[in-house]
Amino acid sequence: MNPFDDAYFMRKALQEAEQAYAKGEVPVGAIIVFKNQIIARAHNLTERLNDVTAHAEMQAFTSAADFLGGKYLRDCTLYVTLEPCQMCAGASYWTQIGKIVYGADEPKSGFTVLGTKLHPKTKVVSGVLKEECAEIIKRFFIQKRNLN
Amino acid sequence: MNPFDDAYFMRKALQEAEQAYAKGEVPVGAIIVFKNQIIARAHNLTERLNDVTAHAEMQAFTSAADFLGGKYLRDCTLYVTLEPCQMCAGASYWTQIGKIVYGADEPKSGFTVLGTKLHPKTKVVSGVLKEECAEIIKRFFIQKRNLN
Repeated sequence: MNPFDDAYFMRKALQEAEQAYAKGEVPVGAIIVFKNQIIARAHNLTERLNDVTAHAEMQAFTSAADFLGGKYLRDCTLYVTLEPCQMCAGASYWTQIGKIVYGADEPKSGFTVLGTKLHPKTKVVSGVLKEECAEIIKRFFIQKRNLN
Repeated sequence: MNPFDDAYFMRKALQEAEQAYAKGEVPVGAIIVFKNQIIARAHNLTERLNDVTAHAEMQAFTSAADFLGGKYLRDCTLYVTLEPCQMCAGASYWTQIGKIVYGADEPKSGFTVLGTKLHPKTKVVSGVLKEECAEIIKRFFIQKRNLN
């Protein structure tokens, strides 16, 4: 049994999403893993930073490259609770990341429906802890609606 | 005669590209204009920052939103010397930017050939100072080849 499976790391990304939730941000979390080690953790901060580019994945890419001291993330895996958008998938192309694992689908603005081109070396796994990843977002918007 | 036409602002973006060139970066420059005022200037810094997300446009979006104090750039125009990539075009979607004016085409990784979805309110003008914008990139790669 491998304790470091995709579900294990997705739970770490979900912890990041919970941090976003607590800050009133759309709760999306991401981590980047290199040789079973988490080298970057990030969550959506678009409201707090007043910056639409501050998606969890973008911050995680910058942070992971900083940790590794190289621009490319070829032997790394991105775990993200929500399917990446065009911007984040487009950024992943430049990082040449080895693998993207995401939880919930984003049928409106996700990269699969919009056909964003990934790097040919990037593998994709979807649907890991799908329900938990979708639930936190649903919970966020229900709460937001009730507050307004 | 309007002195603040697209060519006027593209020259300012070209000045940014020259700064990137001087730093050994692929020479792409961008500015963002709001009511004929330049509110953000940036150039590619991917090497210096060791960060593939540090394209001129990404930095300009962040900087312009910071200047305006709001996330959206609806009444702004982005001037960029090279056609934006998927990441930058995807970011522009989230900014809801009013207009994108670019110089040289990027037939391999530009957003038009890759079909990246822009915000429905974003207008696009291409080919402004096309030759100058392409020439600086050509010059950069010729020099780079000669140095190696």
